[in-house]
Amino acid sequence: MKIKIKKDLLLENLNKVAKALSTKNLVPALAGIKFDLDKDGLTLTASDNDITIRSFIPYQNEDMTIEEEGSIIIQGRYILDIVRKLPDNMINLEVFDELKVIISTENSEYNLNGINKNEYPNINLELNKTPILINSKVFKDLVNQTAFAASNDESRPPLTGLNIKIVGDILECNCTDSYRLARKTIKLENNVDTDYNIVIPSKNIIEVSKLLADDDKDIELHIFNNKILFKYENVLFQSRLINGTFPNTTNLLPKESMLKVVVNVADLYNVIDRVSILTSDKEKNVVTLETSGDTLTMKSSSAEIGRVEEKMTIKKDKIDDITISFSARYVMEALKVLDQVECEISFVGEVNPIIFKGLGNDDLIQLVLPIRTY
Amino acid sequence: MKIKIKKDLLLENLNKVAKALSTKNLVPALAGIKFDLDKDGLTLTASDNDITIRSFIPYQNEDMTIEEEGSIIIQGRYILDIVRKLPDNMINLEVFDELKVIISTENSEYNLNGINKNEYPNINLELNKTPILINSKVFKDLVNQTAFAASNDESRPPLTGLNIKIVGDILECNCTDSYRLARKTIKLENNVDTDYNIVIPSKNIIEVSKLLADDDKDIELHIFNNKILFKYENVLFQSRLINGTFPNTTNLLPKESMLKVVVNVADLYNVIDRVSILTSDKEKNVVTLETSGDTLTMKSSSAEIGRVEEKMTIKKDKIDDITISFSARYVMEALKVLDQVECEISFVGEVNPIIFKGLGNDDLIQLVLPIRTY
Repeated sequence: MKIKIKKDLLLENLNKVAKALSTKNLVPALAGIKFDLDKDGLTLTASDNDITIRSFIPYQNEDMTIEEEGSIIIQGRYILDIVRKLPDNMINLEVFDELKVIISTENSEYNLNGINKNEYPNINLELNKTPILINSKVFKDLVNQTAFAASNDESRPPLTGLNIKIVGDILECNCTDSYRLARKTIKLENNVDTDYNIVIPSKNIIEVSKLLADDDKDIELHIFNNKILFKYENVLFQSRLINGTFPNTTNLLPKESMLKVVVNVADLYNVIDRVSILTSDKEKNVVTLETSGDTLTMKSSSAEIGRVEEKMTIKKDKIDDITISFSARYVMEALKVLDQVECEISFVGEVNPIIFKGLGNDDLIQLVLPIRTY
Repeated sequence: MKIKIKKDLLLENLNKVAKALSTKNLVPALAGIKFDLDKDGLTLTASDNDITIRSFIPYQNEDMTIEEEGSIIIQGRYILDIVRKLPDNMINLEVFDELKVIISTENSEYNLNGINKNEYPNINLELNKTPILINSKVFKDLVNQTAFAASNDESRPPLTGLNIKIVGDILECNCTDSYRLARKTIKLENNVDTDYNIVIPSKNIIEVSKLLADDDKDIELHIFNNKILFKYENVLFQSRLINGTFPNTTNLLPKESMLKVVVNVADLYNVIDRVSILTSDKEKNVVTLETSGDTLTMKSSSAEIGRVEEKMTIKKDKIDDITISFSARYVMEALKVLDQVECEISFVGEVNPIIFKGLGNDDLIQLVLPIRTY
C-alpha cells in the first residue's frame, strides 16, 4: 500500500471512524483502524463489535495520489495523534516488509508496526435495496429530543435504547426510563412497505447524529433482524439492535387534562434552575409547582439549608389550580429540547403524568411523572 | 444585617473569596462565607485554614444601600449559586431572627439557615508597615514561569513550594522537583531592608496570581515568620509558609557550556510534541536530541509501537555535536513559558543539566536534567 493524501481529508475521515475504536482490546486488531486502498479510493474501518464505522474517501485527483493498492491495520490512537499534529499539507503513507508502516512528510518520518489485515474480524456491512430516507436535520432533532430520556440501567436493556416504530409513512420514536417519556413523531417522505418496531442502543444513535452536518442531505436507514446500518454521504455506521420488547407507552399518555398552563419555556427553565439550587444534593431534586390565578409559584425546601419561592406569570385554560411536585432535572431536560418559545403543560392530577409540549405542536411530547412529597 | 447590593459587584467578590472555601468541613463555619457589614462597606471572608481570602466592597452610592450593619456566615456553595443565577440587577440580603438569611429580588425569595458569626475562627490578617511592592503583571509572569516546576511529592515539603529570596532590590524565585529547575530574577522598585528566604506553597501562589488583572497596579507582599499576606486592590490573601530549607540550587547551574544551540521556540516545541506521540504511555516520555552540522534531529522509539525521526534547522556556536535524551514533557513545559521567539540551549555534556533561556535574556532560566538511555 502506498498513498499520498491531503492531511485534512485523512484527518476528517479518521475522526469519523475513531468513535468506534475499541478501548477494551480483547481483539488487538480492533485497537487499530483498517486501511483498504484500491484504485477507487481509501476505505477506513473501525469497530468495537458493538458498532462499526466505515468511511470511504473517493479518489480525487488533487487530494490523493495512489501509488500501490493494498491493506493494513494501523494502531488507532497513534495514527490519529500523528496525523492531527503534523503541520504539512500532504502526508505519505507506505507499507513495506508487509507489516511496517511509514508515515512521512518533508521533515518527519514515523515507522509504525502495523497489523496484518487478515487479523481483522469479518464484518458484514450490507445494504437494503429500499432504505428508509430521513432528512439529516430532521434525524438530528429526533435523536436530540428523545435519546436523553433513555435509561442508564442495564438491568432492563430495552429501556436503555431508543424505540423506533414505522407504519406506512409515520415514524414514531420513544425513549423512557420509566419515570419520564420522550416521544417524537415524524412523517417520512415515502411509504415504507414493511412495519418496523426496533430498539437501538441510545448511545450509538447519539454517535450517529453527531456525524451529521447541518445540511439537507438524507440519511439512509437499513434495518435488519438484529442490526441497523446508517448510511450518510460516504460513511456507513452499523449498530446492533437491543433484544426484548419495548414497553407500550401509548397508555401512559393521559387522554384528558384537568388544567392546561401556557408559559414561556426559557423563563420556566430558569425559575426551576434557581429553585432547585437548594435541592442539589439529592439525586432527584424535587421542586413543587403551585398555581394560583395567573401566578405560578415554584418552591423547594431543605430542613438543613433553607427554602425558596419564586413567582412567574402564566396563562391557564381553567379557573382550577394545582399543586404538584417533580424532579427539577427531568423537567429541565424536557424543556431544553422543546425548541419553542412557549410551552403548554397539561395536568391531570397531583399523581398523574405531566405533559410538556411546544404550544400548538403535537409532534413532540415530553412526559414526566410527578413525585409524591407527603 | 440588611443590605441592597448590585448583583455583579457581589458576585465578583464572592468568586474571589470562594477559592478559599473549605471542602473538608471539619469546622462547619469554614464551609461558609463570612459577611461583615458596616457603614464603610461589606467585607467577605473565606478560609480553609491553609489560605484565607478577604475582599472588601467599599460603600458606593449607586451600587449599595446599607440599611442595618451586622455579621453572618452563609453557606458558601449556595450563596454563590444563588447570586450567580439570579437575573436581577439588585439583590436584597437581610438577616432576621439572628440566624435566618433572606436573599430576595422582585420574584425570588430564598430563606437560608445562617451560622453565627462567633463560630468563625479568629483569623488575624495583619499588614506590615513597609510591604514589598511588585507590579502585578511582573508578579503574574514570575509565578507562571516558575511554579509549574514545583514537586507534587509531599514527602519533601520544601520542593512543593516556590522559593523567594530577597536581598536589597533583587528578588530571586526558584522552583524545583529535583529533576528540573525554573529560576526567575526580577529587580524590585525599592530596596528592601531585611533579607528574606521563604517557601510559599506553589498551589497557593498560583491562586494569588489568578486574582490579578492585567493592569499596572502593584501587589503588596507582607512577609511574616510563618505566613505571607498578599494585598491587591481590596483583596487580602494570606497563606502559610512551608517550613524546612529549600535546596541551594545555584551549584546546579553549569558555569560553562560545551555547545550552545539557537532555535525557534515554537518549532522546537511542536517537533518534541510530535516525536513524543510514540512515547506517550510512559510517565517520563523520553526523546533524544541529536545535532549534526546545522541540523537537529529529534527521535524516539518504542519496541511495540515503532520509531520516529524529525529534523529541523539550528544555529550552533561551535562545530561540536551532541546526542542527549530528556523528558519531552519537562522540556515542553519549560519552552512554553519562555515567552520569546528564539531560545538558546546550553549543553555541558550528555549527563549534565541542559539550560534553556530566551535568546539574550538571563532573567529566566529553565534547567532540565538529561536521562541516560543506555
